[in-house]
Amino acid sequence: MRSIGPVRITGPVIDDDVMVPLATYESPLWPSTNRGARVTSHAGGINTVVTDERMSRSILLEAKNAEASLAFTNELERRRSELEAVVAGTSRFGRLRGYHVELTANLIFLRLELCTGDAAGHNMVTLAADRVMIWILEQWPDLAYVSISGNFCTDKKVSAVNGILGRGKHVICESNISTDLCARFLKTTPDRLVDLNIKKNLIGTALAGGVRSANAHFANMLLAFYLATGQDAANIIEGSQGFVHAENRDDVLYFAVTIPNVIVGTVGVGKDSDVVQANLEQLGCLVDRETGANARRLAAIAAATVLCGELSLLAAQTNPGELMKAHCDIERAK
Amino acid sequence: MRSIGPVRITGPVIDDDVMVPLATYESPLWPSTNRGARVTSHAGGINTVVTDERMSRSILLEAKNAEASLAFTNELERRRSELEAVVAGTSRFGRLRGYHVELTANLIFLRLELCTGDAAGHNMVTLAADRVMIWILEQWPDLAYVSISGNFCTDKKVSAVNGILGRGKHVICESNISTDLCARFLKTTPDRLVDLNIKKNLIGTALAGGVRSANAHFANMLLAFYLATGQDAANIIEGSQGFVHAENRDDVLYFAVTIPNVIVGTVGVGKDSDVVQANLEQLGCLVDRETGANARRLAAIAAATVLCGELSLLAAQTNPGELMKAHCDIERAK
Amino acid sequence: MRSIGPVRITGPVIDDDVMVPLATYESPLWPSTNRGARVTSHAGGINTVVTDERMSRSILLEAKNAEASLAFTNELERRRSELEAVVAGTSRFGRLRGYHVELTANLIFLRLELCTGDAAGHNMVTLAADRVMIWILEQWPDLAYVSISGNFCTDKKVSAVNGILGRGKHVICESNISTDLCARFLKTTPDRLVDLNIKKNLIGTALAGGVRSANAHFANMLLAFYLATGQDAANIIEGSQGFVHAENRDDVLYFAVTIPNVIVGTVGVGKDSDVVQANLEQLGCLVDRETGANARRLAAIAAATVLCGELSLLAAQTNPGELMKAHCDIERAK
Amino acid sequence: MRSIGPVRITGPVIDDDVMVPLATYESPLWPSTNRGARVTSHAGGINTVVTDERMSRSILLEAKNAEASLAFTNELERRRSELEAVVAGTSRFGRLRGYHVELTANLIFLRLELCTGDAAGHNMVTLAADRVMIWILEQWPDLAYVSISGNFCTDKKVSAVNGILGRGKHVICESNISTDLCARFLKTTPDRLVDLNIKKNLIGTALAGGVRSANAHFANMLLAFYLATGQDAANIIEGSQGFVHAENRDDVLYFAVTIPNVIVGTVGVGKDSDVVQANLEQLGCLVDRETGANARRLAAIAAATVLCGELSLLAAQTNPGELMKAHCDIERAK
Repeated sequence: MRSIGPVRITGPVIDDDVMVPLATYESPLWPSTNRGARVTSHAGGINTVVTDERMSRSILLEAKNAEASLAFTNELERRRSELEAVVAGTSRFGRLRGYHVELTANLIFLRLELCTGDAAGHNMVTLAADRVMIWILEQWPDLAYVSISGNFCTDKKVSAVNGILGRGKHVICESNISTDLCARFLKTTPDRLVDLNIKKNLIGTALAGGVRSANAHFANMLLAFYLATGQDAANIIEGSQGFVHAENRDDVLYFAVTIPNVIVGTVGVGKDSDVVQANLEQLGCLVDRETGANARRLAAIAAATVLCGELSLLAAQTNPGELMKAHCDIERAK
Repeated sequence: MRSIGPVRITGPVIDDDVMVPLATYESPLWPSTNRGARVTSHAGGINTVVTDERMSRSILLEAKNAEASLAFTNELERRRSELEAVVAGTSRFGRLRGYHVELTANLIFLRLELCTGDAAGHNMVTLAADRVMIWILEQWPDLAYVSISGNFCTDKKVSAVNGILGRGKHVICESNISTDLCARFLKTTPDRLVDLNIKKNLIGTALAGGVRSANAHFANMLLAFYLATGQDAANIIEGSQGFVHAENRDDVLYFAVTIPNVIVGTVGVGKDSDVVQANLEQLGCLVDRETGANARRLAAIAAATVLCGELSLLAAQTNPGELMKAHCDIERAK
Repeated sequence: MRSIGPVRITGPVIDDDVMVPLATYESPLWPSTNRGARVTSHAGGINTVVTDERMSRSILLEAKNAEASLAFTNELERRRSELEAVVAGTSRFGRLRGYHVELTANLIFLRLELCTGDAAGHNMVTLAADRVMIWILEQWPDLAYVSISGNFCTDKKVSAVNGILGRGKHVICESNISTDLCARFLKTTPDRLVDLNIKKNLIGTALAGGVRSANAHFANMLLAFYLATGQDAANIIEGSQGFVHAENRDDVLYFAVTIPNVIVGTVGVGKDSDVVQANLEQLGCLVDRETGANARRLAAIAAATVLCGELSLLAAQTNPGELMKAHCDIERAK
Repeated sequence: MRSIGPVRITGPVIDDDVMVPLATYESPLWPSTNRGARVTSHAGGINTVVTDERMSRSILLEAKNAEASLAFTNELERRRSELEAVVAGTSRFGRLRGYHVELTANLIFLRLELCTGDAAGHNMVTLAADRVMIWILEQWPDLAYVSISGNFCTDKKVSAVNGILGRGKHVICESNISTDLCARFLKTTPDRLVDLNIKKNLIGTALAGGVRSANAHFANMLLAFYLATGQDAANIIEGSQGFVHAENRDDVLYFAVTIPNVIVGTVGVGKDSDVVQANLEQLGCLVDRETGANARRLAAIAAATVLCGELSLLAAQTNPGELMKAHCDIERAK
């Protein structure tokens, strides 16, 4: 575990310089991410926006036939306020933000989406799903239980649904870096970085059969950050499906990362240890515990850190031989 | 960190009872995976096969036009032995097993696939790719460098290419569990488990827009196992794309997990710490260091552990309310 | 062009025996689909439900930065009634059913979803999108035009978004076929058909890197039906992403096809020719022209026809050699 | 049916001016594609390369367990020449180019890949698969038949496997269009077209959950071309998964389309009618019938036509309002 930074973050969610703890076996990740922190700080920081937040769990039911599934779906819509009340009764913070029904044959996938305050919300949505399941089976006795989770949630698995319907915080980070700073810190130019992003992240990922994804290594930074802050690190799978967008705007590099599914919390499983508490404290994420602001701040920092690491690696890859050299130097120096 | 097991593993790769260390914040994972270990042991163990192994890195080049790309591709095929020699010159263990060329417009994605002995091989393939890149740019001066990695590799990202062309160990595990053992240990029946697998893992994942994947939570077990054994845990992303296949064969549950991309090693980055060495020792993976047998054994154990955890969770989800109850009991008991 | 049937269709949308015109070069398609029509008729028909309908077009805009994108999104939600009015002003039938905003970097993908009466609605949504674009650029002068279509619609292309958010009619068809009828008409058993569906349609498609799809050849029937009824046949691409679900329920085969994106109309481009009019007349789809009932009926028939053809091919594939024999016999007989 | 062109095609496969017949209900497609033909002709034509060709069918078998699957796979590799002989015995043109085995649980997906001369090859591979199946079941009596097609082929369905392993002709087309010609014919600039391709085709498609795809409407041109030349038009599904790559190279627009799966033939089902024969004649595709050159030429023309239509539509979409206006003008003029 080592901290990198300061990462300068600006914008509506957070306006601060932050030292970011990263836990990783991959030692080149620290200096590389740190380089991204330095260059973006010089460039005025990383503007960060959380555009959405929700946690999901999809229960799976079975009707007699498709007609009955549709009838249930229509009736549930009419009784939405009851559904909201069932959810609200299961925890202090969990509130129904929305839901989505997917019908296939006589199967009903009901995806519940909740606000979960400062918690990542895995257990909160499972508890809510459990109670909703009980309520439905009572109210619609012709329906049958199939599973408390129908994989349409979907937790720790590759999907398109999480990006399209939302899971966790949807975070966008942007930085504008002059040609000068690109040269000085990143040994590259805006044009070369834009070009690499198109050919590697966009085209290369598409050719590989990637889904809703265009990045080099979001997962590396997310893993190190999630481990350091006591998250359920398997959620890097959802986090790995994110986007880099880069443009040369009048000789300034516009560099943005969008991570639709940052799944983090400041309370709950994994947060009790002293190390995690110290890290959350250092990040300023143990303040107001009523509004979910801690978790939003944490998500913003996670995504800004991803931006730093992604920018640095891409810059390195624009130069033949640099990546290998950096690895060798660091490994040798250990 | 806690060990579960013994997991009884049989088959060509390994024939042994193993205590498996798992590092996780998710405390219900231990007893749940352990239940899978118990029931499969009583059922005669988990038969485990490693069907393929290779590590990949795709370099990205650019030709003048598509015609030149094709000419290069054809010539490279004729000079394959030279390519093999370049790769073999970069490390003691790395050998070219195969390669794949993907042409798009004037872009050339050359995916190199290596045997890497007991190492997971991330650095070995990057080094080989670096040298191959140098060799190509010398031999074909009309080609231009784009990136040492073109995302067609693809590392720590969702894809179809890794499953189809191979990356890491491709492992299949199977167990045959009688109706009796299903009832006693798993509180379910073969039919109910088969039914859940179809509706949740196969149909549910497909509806979620999953790619080459049909499982409930492979990632949880892989994360805990990778952390305990010093792996690059971000490779759970590739590992999360695996399959459960379940059948009721004359009242015996045939339960199989297939994980096409188990990316593990017993040497290299992350393996130096005392804890990791002790765990590898406990698993019997520090023996013959010349043939890659340690890494294959480790991969087999990883996949068998996944089977245990997957079987147990699926069984729990066949019963309304059981999942939530298990979570609550464990959390409360802490 | 030849008609098959009668296809017996029951359920809320349509309750009728229909002769279905199919235009195809693939002559085995007629007898094969006809076999499905015969067996389902004997089994009491095909129950058919249209669970949703909408047509989509996503415009693509650009904001100064992500913060401005989010501000626009929030304001648009507050001014939803104005947006609805803009859409309603563009045609007699087009009404806004919903919309979805996807933010990435500073890009705004606004997916408009309309009811379009009896039209498939391609032009109706493009016209609406055009007017909405004009309105937005007037009202939010800081936003910039990128494209009238941002591929998040998405027309005639593979996607997950169309299935999850809806495009065209979402249709489910079911039939319950006794073991006896399976043997007599399909030369197979419920168990063998269920087994084939799991291994080929569910597992095989997943392995192939399919997306939201589990079927053998939905596209064949859709192409022949779309050509015969004057549809834009390139929309078979969306239609090809559908699901078979099969179960053995007490020795009765439950066989269901779900097609989330049946894109058809009874008015508009391609419907003017005498042949098409005669076919639509034969199908009973030129009746009440105010409510969209014609198009829903047409979609129901399309999907029921798919069920017939899918059931028949799958049954054939359960028997070694039968598929090849059928092809050879028919080709030779020509 | 109307012909557009001349399309000027250059390069190794074909060097010719061609009038291309297109059958479509979508009348704006003709003038739009024709515009692409005009501008690329002025620009020196469309360079076209066929980089690969093969037709595939995957049979599906079942072994006792995974170990037996692997044993079969290894033995098949040793007996490859026998396999080749079985395939060669089934037709005059069909030859085994390669095969791919995918193992999951105890299931064996064996994807056969054949050269098929001038035929698209659907029936040729099915016949070969049929005979290979018989041979395998004789030689390996412990294996069991599951299906003559395991959906890992994969025909007329969305996939990643067809792009990665190949199916049909893999065709790349390129044209270099000056700023001047862009302005005169396309009313746009290289920069605006490049920008649109990134935001709509690459980013937009990825967000939509597309798979191995980045284009606006390849399917439209392919459908019209396939219908006019007697192809199995449902194969536009594979064809729709293709790529546009555009770059501004010193004020010249480099515009390339890559279509990995052009599935066409000049002999076989659908080619007998007078109209189709006349069209194939007009295209110069009824010449040498021994080498597969006719089918390669046809594939090259198909892809060049796609380039024309794609370029024209993208150009139109760079201009607000142009698309709608073009549609309205044409519809009104009818």
